[in-house]
Amino acid sequence: MRALHFDGSAARVVDAPVPEPDLDCALVRVSVAGVCNTDLELVRGYMGFRGILGHEFAGSIAGGPEDWRGQRVVGEINFACESCPTCAEGLKRHCPSRRVMGILDADGAFAEYVSVPVSNLHPIPDAVPDDVAVFAEPLAAAFEILEQVHVAPGQDCLVLGDGKLGLLAAQVLQLAGARVVVVGKHAHKLDVLRKRDIQTVLLRDWRPARTSLVVEATGTARGFEAAVAATRPRGTLVLKSTVAERPAVDLSPLVIDEIRVVGSRCGPFPPALRALETGSVDVRSLVCDRFPLAEAPRALERAGEPGALKVLLETA
Amino acid sequence: MRALHFDGSAARVVDAPVPEPDLDCALVRVSVAGVCNTDLELVRGYMGFRGILGHEFAGSIAGGPEDWRGQRVVGEINFACESCPTCAEGLKRHCPSRRVMGILDADGAFAEYVSVPVSNLHPIPDAVPDDVAVFAEPLAAAFEILEQVHVAPGQDCLVLGDGKLGLLAAQVLQLAGARVVVVGKHAHKLDVLRKRDIQTVLLRDWRPARTSLVVEATGTARGFEAAVAATRPRGTLVLKSTVAERPAVDLSPLVIDEIRVVGSRCGPFPPALRALETGSVDVRSLVCDRFPLAEAPRALERAGEPGALKVLLETA
Repeated sequence: MRALHFDGSAARVVDAPVPEPDLDCALVRVSVAGVCNTDLELVRGYMGFRGILGHEFAGSIAGGPEDWRGQRVVGEINFACESCPTCAEGLKRHCPSRRVMGILDADGAFAEYVSVPVSNLHPIPDAVPDDVAVFAEPLAAAFEILEQVHVAPGQDCLVLGDGKLGLLAAQVLQLAGARVVVVGKHAHKLDVLRKRDIQTVLLRDWRPARTSLVVEATGTARGFEAAVAATRPRGTLVLKSTVAERPAVDLSPLVIDEIRVVGSRCGPFPPALRALETGSVDVRSLVCDRFPLAEAPRALERAGEPGALKVLLETA
Repeated sequence: MRALHFDGSAARVVDAPVPEPDLDCALVRVSVAGVCNTDLELVRGYMGFRGILGHEFAGSIAGGPEDWRGQRVVGEINFACESCPTCAEGLKRHCPSRRVMGILDADGAFAEYVSVPVSNLHPIPDAVPDDVAVFAEPLAAAFEILEQVHVAPGQDCLVLGDGKLGLLAAQVLQLAGARVVVVGKHAHKLDVLRKRDIQTVLLRDWRPARTSLVVEATGTARGFEAAVAATRPRGTLVLKSTVAERPAVDLSPLVIDEIRVVGSRCGPFPPALRALETGSVDVRSLVCDRFPLAEAPRALERAGEPGALKVLLETA
C-alpha cells in the first residue's frame, strides 16, 4: 500500500506492506486523513518518531472483527495496554506503555490502511461525511479542556492562536457558555469565528487584558510566556502546544501570580462526534486544501505555510 | 536606625531614618527577622528591588494605633490597595498595585523598625516566643498549598527539596493527613522530618516514583524539570521556587501527561500561628544560626551556604 513514511530525516511516500492487525485490532481502510501541527513537529524531531505518520483519520473497517465490517469509523490515537493500574484507573490515554498512532511506536493513518485497536474505534454517525468526521480527533482535544477545567457560563476566556486547535477550542468554549475572545494573526482564520459570534482580535491590535481562563494554542514555544502574562492572578492557563523546542522560560510569574497551568492533550470522542453531527461546531470552514496521498509531502509543506488551516489527505 | 539596605549591587548595613507610618499603618519595633531564599535571590537581581530587605519578622507595636500599642505582632507582607476589584474579590495578596515588604516598593524588616499596614498585622499568641513567631510567614506559605490544592488524607505527596520551605511544606502536608516523602541532599535537614515520622530519601538514593502531588521546593531553576518528571499523568505539581534565572524548559511533558502546575506563593497566617501555638509544626529545629542586625551581611552569606537552614537576625 501507499504510505507517508518518516525515516528520521525526510517524509516520503513509500510502498509499505498492508498492516496485519492483531486479534484485538481492526484494519481500517483510510478515506480521509488530516494534517496536524504535531505531524510537522514530528518531522522536526519531536518524539524521535520513525514510521508512518498521521493520527487524524476517517475510514471504514476492511478487516478484523466481523460485526464491524464495513462500518465507517474514526479512532482514538492512544493504544493502551488495558491491563496496568493507570488503565484500570480509567486513564487509558495516559497508559505508560501506550503506543500512539503516528506519534509513538505505532504506524499512522497517512496510508491506505491502518491497524487500530477495536476498543479505540467510534462509529461515525450517518449524517457526518468522512471529511467532517476526520475532525473528531482534534475536536476531542478541544473538548478535553472542558474535561479538565470548570468553565462557567459567562466566564471570560481568552484563546491565543488562530490555528486549527485555537479555532476548535474557541467554539467548544463558546458551546460551554463562555465569553470567548480569540487573538490571532490571520483575519481569514478569525473570520470563521466571527461568523459564529465569537469575538476576535488581530494580534497587532490586541491590548492584553488579563483573563481568568487562557488557552495557549499558538503552537509555538514563545506563546507560553505571552499566555502567562495574559492570565489573571489565580487564573488558569490551558497549555495545548507541543513543540520540539526548549524555550527559556521565566517561571516566577507562575509563582507570584499563583497561576494554574493545565497541560491538555487528547480528549473524549463522543462529545466531538455529537458536535459534528449537530453542526454545533463548524469544521468545514477550517479545510484549506486537499491532496491525494501520493502528494502527501506537498500536503505537509502546505500545512506548514503561514495562513494554512486544515490540510486533508484523500486516500481513497 | 540600623537597617540592611540593598542598593542594586550590594547589601550593606546603613543608618536609615525610622519610618514614619501612614495613618493606616503601625510602626513595628522588629525583634527577630528571618532570612528567606527570596532575600538571596533579590540580592542576585530578582525583582530589581532596591531598599531595606527582609519580610519575615516578629516584633511589637511601637507607634500607630493606640489599641495596638505594645502588642507583639507578625505581619503579612503584601500591602494591598484595598480598593481595587482584585482586593474586593478577596485576593488582596494579588492586588495589582500592591507593595511587598522588602521585595517590591516597600522597605523591609531587616531593620530596627518597619512600617506595616494595620490590616496586615496578626497578634502573636502569648505562648509563642518571637523567634518561633518569625516563622509565621514562611509557614503560611506552606499552608497556601492546602488553600490551593485538595490534599486527601492518605494521599501520596512528594516534596522535592529539604530547604526551609520544603521542611515546612512536608510538615503541613503531613498535618493534612498525606503520606509524605521528602527528597533532599542533606541528612541533617531530613533528620528534622524523620523525627516527625516523615519519610525522607537522600537525593543520591532516590529512585523517582511518579506521584499524584509533587511540591517543587528545591529553590533552583533546574528543580522544575525534575519535579515534572516526578509527577504522575494528570497529577499536580505545586511550584514554590522563585528564582531570577530563566531555565530552558521542555514544556511538552506538561501537555503529554496533562500535568497541572500550580504556582504557590504567600499564604494564610491564622493556621500558621495556630500550628506554632500548638507545636504541631517544628520550626525550632530549622534555626541554624543567629546574628545581630549589625552583622546582617554575614547572615545573608551564612544563609546562602549549602546545608544552611533558617538564619535569624536579632534586632533587639
